[in-house]
Amino acid sequence: MTSVDELRQKIAELEAKLANVSKKNAPRREKIVTISSDVLDSNPYSRLMALKRMGIVNNYEQIREFTVAVVGVGGVGSVTAEMLTRCGIGRLLLFDYDKVELANMNRLFFQPHQSGLSKVQAAAETLININPDVDIHTYNYNITTVENFDNFVKTLTTSSLTNGPVDLVLSCVDNFEARFTINTACNEFNLNWFESGVSENAVSGHIQFLAPGETACFACAPPLIVASNIDEKTLKRDGVCAASLPTTMGIIAGFLVQNTLKYLLQFGQVTNYLGYNALNDFFPTMSLRPNPNCEDSNCRLRQAEFLAKPRPEQAQEAVEDVGPIHESNEYGISLIDESKDEKENIAVAEGLALAYTVPGVPDTIPLEQAQEATNSDDVSLEELMKQMKAI
Amino acid sequence: MTSVDELRQKIAELEAKLANVSKKNAPRREKIVTISSDVLDSNPYSRLMALKRMGIVNNYEQIREFTVAVVGVGGVGSVTAEMLTRCGIGRLLLFDYDKVELANMNRLFFQPHQSGLSKVQAAAETLININPDVDIHTYNYNITTVENFDNFVKTLTTSSLTNGPVDLVLSCVDNFEARFTINTACNEFNLNWFESGVSENAVSGHIQFLAPGETACFACAPPLIVASNIDEKTLKRDGVCAASLPTTMGIIAGFLVQNTLKYLLQFGQVTNYLGYNALNDFFPTMSLRPNPNCEDSNCRLRQAEFLAKPRPEQAQEAVEDVGPIHESNEYGISLIDESKDEKENIAVAEGLALAYTVPGVPDTIPLEQAQEATNSDDVSLEELMKQMKAI
Repeated sequence: MTSVDELRQKIAELEAKLANVSKKNAPRREKIVTISSDVLDSNPYSRLMALKRMGIVNNYEQIREFTVAVVGVGGVGSVTAEMLTRCGIGRLLLFDYDKVELANMNRLFFQPHQSGLSKVQAAAETLININPDVDIHTYNYNITTVENFDNFVKTLTTSSLTNGPVDLVLSCVDNFEARFTINTACNEFNLNWFESGVSENAVSGHIQFLAPGETACFACAPPLIVASNIDEKTLKRDGVCAASLPTTMGIIAGFLVQNTLKYLLQFGQVTNYLGYNALNDFFPTMSLRPNPNCEDSNCRLRQAEFLAKPRPEQAQEAVEDVGPIHESNEYGISLIDESKDEKENIAVAEGLALAYTVPGVPDTIPLEQAQEATNSDDVSLEELMKQMKAI
Repeated sequence: MTSVDELRQKIAELEAKLANVSKKNAPRREKIVTISSDVLDSNPYSRLMALKRMGIVNNYEQIREFTVAVVGVGGVGSVTAEMLTRCGIGRLLLFDYDKVELANMNRLFFQPHQSGLSKVQAAAETLININPDVDIHTYNYNITTVENFDNFVKTLTTSSLTNGPVDLVLSCVDNFEARFTINTACNEFNLNWFESGVSENAVSGHIQFLAPGETACFACAPPLIVASNIDEKTLKRDGVCAASLPTTMGIIAGFLVQNTLKYLLQFGQVTNYLGYNALNDFFPTMSLRPNPNCEDSNCRLRQAEFLAKPRPEQAQEAVEDVGPIHESNEYGISLIDESKDEKENIAVAEGLALAYTVPGVPDTIPLEQAQEATNSDDVSLEELMKQMKAI
C-alpha cells in the first residue's frame, strides 16, 4: 500500500509541474503605463519609439489613443490584428463569427490547437498574451443580419477610448455582402475605412481607402473584382474551394496596417488604392472620385458636406488639382490612374468577374485560361462605362 | 489528518488538470504522409492544393521535396520560416545565434514567454507545432567566424532531403558581414540565394535574387544600402537603436517567400530585385548583371561557366535581350532599370550610406534631414561609376 508521504510527494510534484506549465502559458509581462524610448532588451516599444528619433513619426505615443475595428479575423484580418497589437494600438475591436479550422493553417496566425474555438476568442487570447497593453474587445456575430447590424453600428459609433466613434474600420471580410454592410454603416456614420481583398486564386490582392464624400464608396463604383452570383458555399461544397497563401495574405495585411499607421500617425502618404499581383510583382495604384449619382443616399450627403466644407488649402489645391480626366459620364465616376505606362494584370478565378471589363475580354474569365485583363490608359473611361451598362 | 482517499482524489484532479494543459500545448495533429486536395475543414493543405485547380501551380505536392535554408531568424527570417512551414516545405534549416528579447515583440512571430530562449529553438518549437510535416533543423551559431563557416558550408551542401545541396538559401540577416559570408559560400558552391533587407528607419526594404554567374553577386556591385564603418553595437549603446515595424518586415518576408514559391514551384516570374518604400507605396524593380571584374574569383568562375553553358533558348533570347544599357565601364556593371519613368526614393538612416550615390546628394545623409536620393534614368551609369570610385 502507498504511504501518505508518498502520496504527498506525488501531489507536490504534480503541483510543481502544473505551476511550470501555467507559467509558460501566462502573459510574460505586466501592463506598461507609459511607453518609453529606452533602448533596453526588455522594452517592447524601443524599436517603435525609435521611429521618432529616425524622423519618421512625430508622435508615436499617440497610437495608444486610437481605436481600430477589424471586421473579419481570417487570413488578412488576423495578421492585421497582430500587427496592430504589436504596434501597441490603444483599443482593438474584432468582429467575426467563424471558427478556427485546420484548413486555416496555411495562413499565418492561428495554430492547430485553436481548432474549434471561435476566431475572435482564439485571436484575443493570443493577442493579449503578445501585448497586454492593448484593450481587445470581441464580437462573435455576423454583421450582415438585420439585428446584428444595429449592434455593429452602435459598437462602431460608441466604442472609442472616449466613447465616440472608432478612428478607423478595416474590412478584412471575404464576401461582397459583408463589404456592402460596412460601406452602408460607414457612409451613414461618416467613418473612414479601408477595404482589403485577396483573389480566389491567391495570387493577387488590394487595399482601398474610403473616406465618405471624399473618395468613391463601395456603391459608387463596382469593385474591381466582385463575386458573381454563384454562391461561394456551393462552390466549396462542389470541391471548388478558393486557394490561399500565407504570403499574399501577409503582404495585404502589411499594406493595410502600414497605411493605417500612416493615416493615424500622419506620416508618408496614404495610398487610395494599392493592388498587388504576385505573378509579376506588379503594384497598380489609383484614386477613385465619388459618384455624384451614387445609389447610397448617405454617400451623396457626405459628398455635399465635403464640397461645402471650407478648406484653407483650397486656393493651393486648385492649382495642383489635375481635374477629372473625363468631364462627365452617366456614372459620374472619375478614374485617376496613377500607374501610367504600366499595365494592370488581374487574373480572376471561377466565380469571379471583372467589374470593369475591357473590350475584347469576356465578362467572366474561365479559370483554366488564366487570362489577363488590361486596365490601362489605352481604354477610355467612356468604354468602361459602356461595358458597365452592359453588365 | 488528511485521509488517503482525499489525497488520491487530489492526485486525480491534478493529473486531469495537467493532462488538459499538456493537451493544449501538444501538437494537434499527426504527420500527414500524402497531402490531399480534399476540401475538408480538417485538411491543412486544401487551400494550397487548390492552387493546382486554379491553374496557378502544376505540382504543389513537390514542395515537400525541397530544402530551404533561412539564415537569420529575426523580424524577416522568423516570418519567412513560418510562411514556408505553413506552405509545407520539405525541410527547413534555421541559422541564428541570438536570443529572443521583449524588444523583439514589435515584430511578428515571437511571443513574450519565449524571452531568453535561443531564436532557433523558440522558432522550431512554434513551427513544429504549426506543421509537424516539416523537417526542421536548427543551427545556433554565428556563421561569420572561421570555424563556423566550414560547418555552415558543409550544412548548405549536404543537407537536402537527398543529402545534396539545399535548393535555396534565404538571407534574412541584419548586417553586411553575414551577407558577405553567405555570398562567399554561395559563389563557391554555386547555390542560388535571395538576399533581403529592411532599412534602419523601418520604412523601406528589398529582396534580391542572386544566381552565381547569372546575376550580380553581392561583391559584384555594392548593395544599394551598406552600413558605414560605425559599429552597430556602438550605435545601440549610444541609444540610437534601429527602428522596426511588423508591417515592413512582414511585407518583405512575404515578397521573399512568394518569390521562393515561384522559383521552386515554377510559376509566375521571379523578380531579380524588388524594393519597397512604405512612405509612398513605391516598388522599384531592376536586374543587375554580374561584374566581369568581380573581386570574388568564384563569381568570375561561375560567370565563365554560365557563358559556356549550352542554352537551347539562346537564339530566341538574343532577340529579346535588350543588351547592357552601357557598353562597358570600369566596374563592368550593367544596370537594367525596369522601373522607368518612376523615381526611386531611398531614405537612409544614420550609420548607413547609399552605395550608389547621386551627384548633388552627399555621401552620408544625416538622419534628421531625411533626404531622398534619386536613382532614375536621369543619372548615367558613368556618373554612378565616377561616384563609386570616389567612395
